[in-house]
Parts: sequence; C-alpha cells; structure tokens
Amino acid sequence: MTINKCQPGNLSIQDVFSDIPDNLPEELFQTLINTSDVRIERIISHGHQTPPDEWYDQNEDEWVMVIQGAAELAFDDGRLPVRLREGQSIYLPAHCRHRVSWTAPGANTIWLAVFFPPDYNDLSILPE
Amino acid sequence: MTINKCQPGNLSIQDVFSDIPDNLPEELFQTLINTSDVRIERIISHGHQTPPDEWYDQNEDEWVMVIQGAAELAFDDGRLPVRLREGQSIYLPAHCRHRVSWTAPGANTIWLAVFFPPDYNDLSILPE
Repeated sequence: MTINKCQPGNLSIQDVFSDIPDNLPEELFQTLINTSDVRIERIISHGHQTPPDEWYDQNEDEWVMVIQGAAELAFDDGRLPVRLREGQSIYLPAHCRHRVSWTAPGANTIWLAVFFPPDYNDLSILPE
Repeated sequence: MTINKCQPGNLSIQDVFSDIPDNLPEELFQTLINTSDVRIERIISHGHQTPPDEWYDQNEDEWVMVIQGAAELAFDDGRLPVRLREGQSIYLPAHCRHRVSWTAPGANTIWLAVFFPPDYNDLSILPE
C-alpha cells in the first residue's frame, strides 16, 4: 500500500502574522509544529518581560528569531544583555539561563522559536 | 567542573537580512544551525525556480517559511500549487515530492527552512 506523503492535512499553511488577539494581557505561546524531535512555537509579546528574578533554564536547545518588533535578552552570568531586531536570531544552548528583559512597548513582538534536543557533540553543552 | 552553558561562541547573533550577495546566479543555501536532530537553513531565491522536471524527495521532514518575498510550491501528485507570502509557512513531510515553481522576480525571496527527522507517530508519513 502506498501512502500519500503529502496528505492535505499536512499541507495546511500557517501565517505568523494572522490570528493575533487585540489584547495580550500575557505573552502568547502557540505550537506550530510538535514532533518527537523538534517543536516550533510562535511567541507574541507586547511589552512583556520575564519577571525580574525568573530565569528560563531549559532542558532543550532553543534557536529563536525576532520576526517582528524588538526584544532584549539578559543572562544569569552577568554578561551584557543582547538586543534583537527584526530578522535577528540567537542560539540558546540548554541550561543557558536567560530571561526576556525587554520587548518593544505598545507593539507586538513576534518570535519564532525552535526547540530541539541538546547536541552533546558540542563540548560547550556537555551534561555535567 | 561546571561548564558554562552560555559560552560566548554560542551566543553569536545571526541576521537573516544580512550578508546577501548583490548577484545570485544560483539560489543560496546557508546552514544556520546543524545538530544531529535539526538543521536550520536560510535560502535566498531571486526569481529562481526548481527545473521543471526536478522534484525534491527528501528523507527529512521540512518546515519552511517565507520571511521576505513570495513563492509558489508545486506538488508531484497534481494538486494545486501553493502560494506563500511573507510570514506564511508550510510543513512538508518527508518524501512529499515538491518543487519551487515560482519566486518573485527581480527581488530576493528569503526562506527559513527547518529540517528534522520524520515523525513516525504520524500515520501519514509512515515508512513504506
């Protein structure tokens, strides 16, 4: 039996600029793709930031791009924060403790985030 | 020994709109992230299309978004082509035979493509 690899249900188009609520009291996290190996999310911030004493300490690697808007990430080791504008992305290895220290006020900042298992071939992210 | 999970080398910022050659005789494929589980590429087309009788028949799943420009994908099973504008993405299961049938002429079309292992939990993409 031959299975059609392009079943219609798999070819639905998603639009990162569509279906954005008018009001965003909280940041909006939406999963676009979720397999056993990778998860792709759209995140929408509207001036939000991570609470000052909270850090993301993730078991997965993350690659994240600002599609629209602007944002700043801060790091637990005291290094200078990183500002990201539209089109800019950063690779955050697992357990790289970070927080969103700023997003553009009064406008939507749209992030595209890809999460995947840590690559233990990379010495910088060996398990302890 | 504690290993710093945020080594400077891992935090370099990439810009999807930067370092684009003035002339693109061929489509440009650039790897942004490459681990054992996921590969993220920037692809730049400038009116290019896949040769008419050639099909991409990939062993990996692909999720691809048009970041800038516009494009059209055609499929081997004769279904209608799919037009993608900025911000639109499509999930192409492994072995979903497709080709790029059109990209905007006279301008750069920038794609972001994420490749990852097929999710065999999805019945539509079971191996034959």
